[in-house]
Amino acid sequence: MTNLPSLDPTDWQTFRDEAHRALDQAINHMQGRQDDPVWQPVPSEIRTSLKADLPRQGQAIDRLTDQMADRFLPYGVGNTHARFFGWVHGAGTPQGILPDIMAAAMNANLGGRDHVANLVEKQVIDWMRQAFDFPDTSGGLVVSGTSVATLIAIKSAREKHGGLDLRRTGLGRATKQLVGYASDQAHSCIARTFDILGLGQDALRMVPTDGDYRMDAGALKTMIAQDLTAGHQPFCLVGTAGAVNVGAIDPLETLAEIAREHNMWFHVDGAFGATAVLSDAQKPLLAGLSQADSIAFDFHKWLHVNYDAGFILMRDVEDQWRAFTERPDYLEGAERGLAAGNPWFCEYGPELSRGFRALKIWFHLMHFGTDRLGGLIAQNCDQAKALAGMVERSDRLELLAPVALNITCFRYNPGDLDGPDLDRLNGEIVVALQERGLAAPSTTKLKGHLAIRVNITNHRTTLPDLEFLVDHIEKLGQEITASNLV
Amino acid sequence: MTNLPSLDPTDWQTFRDEAHRALDQAINHMQGRQDDPVWQPVPSEIRTSLKADLPRQGQAIDRLTDQMADRFLPYGVGNTHARFFGWVHGAGTPQGILPDIMAAAMNANLGGRDHVANLVEKQVIDWMRQAFDFPDTSGGLVVSGTSVATLIAIKSAREKHGGLDLRRTGLGRATKQLVGYASDQAHSCIARTFDILGLGQDALRMVPTDGDYRMDAGALKTMIAQDLTAGHQPFCLVGTAGAVNVGAIDPLETLAEIAREHNMWFHVDGAFGATAVLSDAQKPLLAGLSQADSIAFDFHKWLHVNYDAGFILMRDVEDQWRAFTERPDYLEGAERGLAAGNPWFCEYGPELSRGFRALKIWFHLMHFGTDRLGGLIAQNCDQAKALAGMVERSDRLELLAPVALNITCFRYNPGDLDGPDLDRLNGEIVVALQERGLAAPSTTKLKGHLAIRVNITNHRTTLPDLEFLVDHIEKLGQEITASNLV
Repeated sequence: MTNLPSLDPTDWQTFRDEAHRALDQAINHMQGRQDDPVWQPVPSEIRTSLKADLPRQGQAIDRLTDQMADRFLPYGVGNTHARFFGWVHGAGTPQGILPDIMAAAMNANLGGRDHVANLVEKQVIDWMRQAFDFPDTSGGLVVSGTSVATLIAIKSAREKHGGLDLRRTGLGRATKQLVGYASDQAHSCIARTFDILGLGQDALRMVPTDGDYRMDAGALKTMIAQDLTAGHQPFCLVGTAGAVNVGAIDPLETLAEIAREHNMWFHVDGAFGATAVLSDAQKPLLAGLSQADSIAFDFHKWLHVNYDAGFILMRDVEDQWRAFTERPDYLEGAERGLAAGNPWFCEYGPELSRGFRALKIWFHLMHFGTDRLGGLIAQNCDQAKALAGMVERSDRLELLAPVALNITCFRYNPGDLDGPDLDRLNGEIVVALQERGLAAPSTTKLKGHLAIRVNITNHRTTLPDLEFLVDHIEKLGQEITASNLV
Repeated sequence: MTNLPSLDPTDWQTFRDEAHRALDQAINHMQGRQDDPVWQPVPSEIRTSLKADLPRQGQAIDRLTDQMADRFLPYGVGNTHARFFGWVHGAGTPQGILPDIMAAAMNANLGGRDHVANLVEKQVIDWMRQAFDFPDTSGGLVVSGTSVATLIAIKSAREKHGGLDLRRTGLGRATKQLVGYASDQAHSCIARTFDILGLGQDALRMVPTDGDYRMDAGALKTMIAQDLTAGHQPFCLVGTAGAVNVGAIDPLETLAEIAREHNMWFHVDGAFGATAVLSDAQKPLLAGLSQADSIAFDFHKWLHVNYDAGFILMRDVEDQWRAFTERPDYLEGAERGLAAGNPWFCEYGPELSRGFRALKIWFHLMHFGTDRLGGLIAQNCDQAKALAGMVERSDRLELLAPVALNITCFRYNPGDLDGPDLDRLNGEIVVALQERGLAAPSTTKLKGHLAIRVNITNHRTTLPDLEFLVDHIEKLGQEITASNLV
């Protein structure tokens, strides 16, 4: 019989010193972060070092800590910098390391059972019901992000309107085709969910949008009528609150009404936009959100909880339970002891083992308070409008979409280039901004044109950061044009 | 225009002090953990305090840190204690807080793009290919756990054998019913995956097991023949490496052969069992594993990485990519700059935003080395056999299943009680062990009988812990019988 020691430190004081040293290295990084480039490519020697054999023997903590501090921390994606404007990334906070320390010390699994971590998640769920003015029947679940949240929502809708028998029989036995609707600006995770759930991406009808990139409700009604005529069953309507290209918000109240009229599930994809309910200035833009059957959103985007942390909010939590419940013998609950506790969260989503994400959300809301988080959301929206103003005042910049929320899409246009050359030029400007570590916007295509897309979900961004950005885009536009690179 | 400060600390030195204080509290908890009860219920005043309104105003860090340390840390599920034997929980490590500190400081999103976090995940993937003797075509993805890993595997199988058109058309248009097979001891996440994917739970045939709870290959062949006769399409065979009830391992080599013969995908659910390949003593039990098309397993179980951390390993990573790829306009990749980088992991699974789970796995394997982790797995298997020996030497204990790996199932049986009373008695014994904080086994049903199920995936467990357990089960059995509670 072997008698190996546990993995616990043999010398706790030495371990304590090592841990404090690592913490200082992490805080040093965060404290000096704004002086670093926004982004820098990973040096080739680090790339090479990350191609090692499976380590059979262990290495000392200090050596690994140094490696993380010196070789990993400086080469992140850039989203902790004030001039990161790419895609829709949250900016994170240094304070977020505290709940992660505590969560690591607990090593909790929130699949079920009777322990305090589940109560913390219940508290977070209850707060979200309050934040979105949802009724007593409502509930939800902390998930890794909007993709999994969407899966939970659309599966609940599938069973609610397609019949619970689908869980057993599958979709091959369905008599009518279940079809859903989302705007042509909807996030790709909606179609992906239709694919995963066996409904098929074609069953998600892409409804055209108006000049402001909002779903055209008239076109939606026509498409529903056509599907009914064809013998299909419209079961689900997805509204978008903050489309990822330009930040557009669908006419949610109108959509809610159409969904009710046709007995469809009304889901809102509010990955970043939904959290704007915490801002008094933006909340009116989201009228209709509180009528949704489900809302999917992320804490790690505009609320800046560290990655990853998302949420699904359900109007009737019983729908969610019916779509996911099942409990095998070895998980049987109990009235008392460790196997008690209610609900078991594994009956509300696809995951059985679930880490303690809820703690960082709890801490973040408790420490910062929703007023402050909402105020920063309002500030980002003001900044996006201010940036649009700078664009409009410039001779060489051209606004490509109205600012609905926090995203400004525009391009550098010297006036004498044709479409493909303009696209190339603006693509080069964005790459140069990134490669020189000056700023990190991303790009998108709007009505066929490549746009510089500045998404401001960033509590560190200031007006001077945006002036700096505009200034460098104009300079780079001239520099690249002069060098005949395009 | 508002001008709000960022969420960063206004006074970094004060924040640094607060963070070090939190770290000490967490380490204090871990250092003293073995002196605490294995589990204790959450006091009612803590339950009550976790029913507060959405916090509009923030609270100071120290106050929240104290709350986490004093009111949360002591009331976990118990899996960090040497005498926790419930379900299949990993035991975690104090060292795991270090990579979590670093990950929080980076706040990375591993959906895609060109940054070091993705390279760390690629390293982890490469290590897993080596650990499981997988070919050059192979790849995989870090996920939250085996449930999501299974979803990725079976969806890849669905498209591989049902046709890629399924992604667009859905299952309602399929001409043949796709059917799969798993043993009646298989984990519930397999059937759940069939449900989610629209295949339907009934399409997963539950194959009977032999006396050792291993899939009966003869019965499997009969069921395949019946399905073929009925015009169905067998597309997927799921073997289990470490069934959750008793730890049984299906005859993987035989199953691999049957899968090849019928052109089926061969998936192995190795949630905890697969990682026993790291133990030289157990690896022969897993012969056939390296022939799988996919293997799903967790790092947070028998390898003790902190929750949550799972993995899907794929023989041909192109199958995985084909089942999940799609890239909308705003995510278009690039040759250079921040949008470059290959692969983009969001094209290999359901999640678009992905936290830096890979870092804690990288650190854990680098710090402990696979030899040590494998040695502890072998030790747990020896301990399960030693426990079975203690049971067999006792007059009042009865072994209910052979020990295949690390799980020992038995019951207290004074000899004069009928079936239902025996079940009640053993249930009471387990609840009493938990409520008194002595030990935490769980229960399961085996051939209709309630068993005390002792799962040893615990690097802290020693032989004296098991002697303590047996001793207290016998005492409690006498105490409860004498008190006429059953």
